[in-house]
Amino acid sequence: HLPISVIAGPCQLESREHALEVASALKEISERLGFGVIFKTSFDKANRTSAKAARGIGLKDALPIFAEIRESLGLAVLTDVHESQQCAPVAEAVDVLQIPAFLCRQTDLLLAAAATGRAINVKKGQFLAPWDMKNVLDKIVLGGNPNVLLCDRGTSFGYNTLVSDFRGLPIMASTGAPVIFDATHSVQQPGGLGGSSGGQREFVPVLARAAVAVGVAGLFIETHPDPDNAPSDGPNMVPLASFEGLMRDLMAIDQVAKAITARDAVK
Amino acid sequence: HLPISVIAGPCQLESREHALEVASALKEISERLGFGVIFKTSFDKANRTSAKAARGIGLKDALPIFAEIRESLGLAVLTDVHESQQCAPVAEAVDVLQIPAFLCRQTDLLLAAAATGRAINVKKGQFLAPWDMKNVLDKIVLGGNPNVLLCDRGTSFGYNTLVSDFRGLPIMASTGAPVIFDATHSVQQPGGLGGSSGGQREFVPVLARAAVAVGVAGLFIETHPDPDNAPSDGPNMVPLASFEGLMRDLMAIDQVAKAITARDAVK
Amino acid sequence: HLPISVIAGPCQLESREHALEVASALKEISERLGFGVIFKTSFDKANRTSAKAARGIGLKDALPIFAEIRESLGLAVLTDVHESQQCAPVAEAVDVLQIPAFLCRQTDLLLAAAATGRAINVKKGQFLAPWDMKNVLDKIVLGGNPNVLLCDRGTSFGYNTLVSDFRGLPIMASTGAPVIFDATHSVQQPGGLGGSSGGQREFVPVLARAAVAVGVAGLFIETHPDPDNAPSDGPNMVPLASFEGLMRDLMAIDQVAKAITARDAVK
Amino acid sequence: HLPISVIAGPCQLESREHALEVASALKEISERLGFGVIFKTSFDKANRTSAKAARGIGLKDALPIFAEIRESLGLAVLTDVHESQQCAPVAEAVDVLQIPAFLCRQTDLLLAAAATGRAINVKKGQFLAPWDMKNVLDKIVLGGNPNVLLCDRGTSFGYNTLVSDFRGLPIMASTGAPVIFDATHSVQQPGGLGGSSGGQREFVPVLARAAVAVGVAGLFIETHPDPDNAPSDGPNMVPLASFEGLMRDLMAIDQVAKAITARDAVK
Repeated sequence: HLPISVIAGPCQLESREHALEVASALKEISERLGFGVIFKTSFDKANRTSAKAARGIGLKDALPIFAEIRESLGLAVLTDVHESQQCAPVAEAVDVLQIPAFLCRQTDLLLAAAATGRAINVKKGQFLAPWDMKNVLDKIVLGGNPNVLLCDRGTSFGYNTLVSDFRGLPIMASTGAPVIFDATHSVQQPGGLGGSSGGQREFVPVLARAAVAVGVAGLFIETHPDPDNAPSDGPNMVPLASFEGLMRDLMAIDQVAKAITARDAVK
Repeated sequence: HLPISVIAGPCQLESREHALEVASALKEISERLGFGVIFKTSFDKANRTSAKAARGIGLKDALPIFAEIRESLGLAVLTDVHESQQCAPVAEAVDVLQIPAFLCRQTDLLLAAAATGRAINVKKGQFLAPWDMKNVLDKIVLGGNPNVLLCDRGTSFGYNTLVSDFRGLPIMASTGAPVIFDATHSVQQPGGLGGSSGGQREFVPVLARAAVAVGVAGLFIETHPDPDNAPSDGPNMVPLASFEGLMRDLMAIDQVAKAITARDAVK
Repeated sequence: HLPISVIAGPCQLESREHALEVASALKEISERLGFGVIFKTSFDKANRTSAKAARGIGLKDALPIFAEIRESLGLAVLTDVHESQQCAPVAEAVDVLQIPAFLCRQTDLLLAAAATGRAINVKKGQFLAPWDMKNVLDKIVLGGNPNVLLCDRGTSFGYNTLVSDFRGLPIMASTGAPVIFDATHSVQQPGGLGGSSGGQREFVPVLARAAVAVGVAGLFIETHPDPDNAPSDGPNMVPLASFEGLMRDLMAIDQVAKAITARDAVK
Repeated sequence: HLPISVIAGPCQLESREHALEVASALKEISERLGFGVIFKTSFDKANRTSAKAARGIGLKDALPIFAEIRESLGLAVLTDVHESQQCAPVAEAVDVLQIPAFLCRQTDLLLAAAATGRAINVKKGQFLAPWDMKNVLDKIVLGGNPNVLLCDRGTSFGYNTLVSDFRGLPIMASTGAPVIFDATHSVQQPGGLGGSSGGQREFVPVLARAAVAVGVAGLFIETHPDPDNAPSDGPNMVPLASFEGLMRDLMAIDQVAKAITARDAVK
């Protein structure tokens, strides 16, 4: 049984030094514990709640940093794209293109991402049922790229709240695509602070444990040396100092979950 | 009291002839009944459920048709945009740019639309609370354009279903922006047919009546001479033959609703 | 077209004097405006959020007061029952038995209420779809009593929040039973104040207008001379001083709604 | 670490022989695997979707069977009560009284159950937030009985669907009461078959794994030798033949979950 892989990193690419610091720490932890890691960070927060919130350093400055992390640390790198024309240049510098949840049905963006040949991690829209992701997957595969990850980051539940429906994990896995559980954005409270999103960091381990026990190919967990002062998603990022302990626990559950006979289909 | 205005037309721009036929019919009805009409049709269905579904005739072929409708019929025209670079060319040919619900938080798209100086109709994302639209409005106003309509098209409610929360209309109106109720997409069942969205056309008059009684600046109602054979949103479009009767009813309710003292704030 | 009837009164039967004061005022208003009124008040709040909240004066003390209101004012009286054995004695003193939303599937309670021969107003459970009320109705009809009103009081929508789905009104009306819209409890925020329920009184006229425009047989509106000091449901009761103005507005909409051709079934 | 306990048995008490057969099988399995078992079955299905559905053998015939199971097999027995006056007689024959979800706010029922001194398992109403259960617990404790289990059986999510929010388990546990996860009713589709409820048996192991990984005191799993022919909840009961394998898997996850350091409160 392959252990879980983890897509991890700070929500926003704040600076070269900051990114390298977190990436190095994640590399060390992943080697110590024996899980695969893909470094994630965003060059642009393109859909902030408020126009006044910080958006990030931008595509042009980010690409050399992505390249440096790949070369100097040997880590795979993932970042998210927002309009079609970003896909080709970004694909030069990273291993995985991510499609944001709000954009998961934008056909042109999916096809432009598919055309790069890179792996694609698509977030499930908060407004979609898990079975709707089959259509999203099909768009990318029809675009010539079968290398797709499907990622759950919660579903709309009333106002300013998300809920994680763990029935969705096997439903999405039935497409054949590896399934990732995003424990960071699943505890987001969208718009919950009025001018920005809130979050419930204390539930990251709760939902991550649940996902691993159900069975996933990987997790998505944002982490930051000082989340309370991060420019975005601070309320739901895990402190870097807690990351190793969290992963140790999750790997223990993952090992058992993958060892026991798959009994998920009681007839 | 100004009577309601109506944004109406076929979901998809199928051909020059088809668009002119519907636009002419709407012009006649609106003149007979005395309501304002903005002709709406889409040049590209950019987020179809399935990649195999028809997307439309495309931006390049649509622009001259939009121009012709404006000139020959004297109707205002509205269409939706999907990526930033579409805003400027589309704004040359239409009066109102529409931001789709999934894209209502994409800052670059909102700013590009704002920069055109055209009126902007923003659909409320199905994943947003009505009070969250204040932040969306602020993005466009900060972009220098105060000419914004806020449009409700339903809120996620379980899987493949939307619900219309009529408390949202006065909440959005409290921003000062005119509020539009989209009676067509509020009865959509997103992804409800597996490979495409379903709809419940029979509830268009129900929800439209409710919205008008609560009080709105306008309605958004897609209509088609033969909805059951339309390439998209057929299940929730109103037959063109029913449009005049529907509007006559709604105008009667609108007249009463606007005449009675606003008692919405019982203390 | 029969105008709407209204089930109205204070949430809780606080005292004989209090009940008579409100009932007299409602009688006067209803005669002035020409709508039917059924006086509603509860002898026991049997499912308060907290055990420490006031429950009411109890069945034994309430029955003579109900009888007095019927005789002295000539008003029909409605009250709610909570366990089977209450139905027979309560039916001696009132015209309509009401089944609370939480209890709308308790077969024994429905059958005991049916057996009294009184009219029965059943609230739709917050956890039920509108079409599920057909089964509830059938239970009572099978119990020998076809005299049933179906009443919508909102549907669970995330935590501590309800939403009113106005598609539900014609769906419930398709059973043949008269449909009532409860504008008071639809704006309740269940458990929203921690130890008690909150409410949004300002949305009572909003949702009542919508319901009347869609078309209902009647409304349910709780009212109180001093809601902010009422022992229960204060946040969502309408002040008695606002009741007449509210009803005047609603009757104006009702008149139009019932006059226009029923076009709710556009095919 | 104490292993999980399980509340298990057939939904409905069909006959003395049937109950003894299932109870004996559960006793054997629990002794083989080393988990505690409480035998659950209902003498009355008091809130069936339809009045025509089978309700069960009734209180009078059930009590001697409960007593026999306790004496002959030495198993603790749990059953559910629906009106106050049932609590005292039922408490003579069983170890745990269960309060159904729809009735979890009925003060009289909670107090009557509390007065028996028996342990009480309260299902969280589908219409309640997890934090609302503190008020329910307080009602019983104020009634003099601190021996309460809080049980999650899903939350309303759109129509005819439930969702399990696993954040609710630690929230309910923060009251100090042991928390049970009901994996059977969490996969119910209330009213989903029109005249009866549907269910998704295949997700019982999925949600049970998640709950155990998050950490619970116990599980609630209905099981039946032939669920497809059971008089109620057939679609969501686990076949008795699958029960041992399911429990073996869940105990393996439980052992790891309870061994790892509680990291649920990452700050």
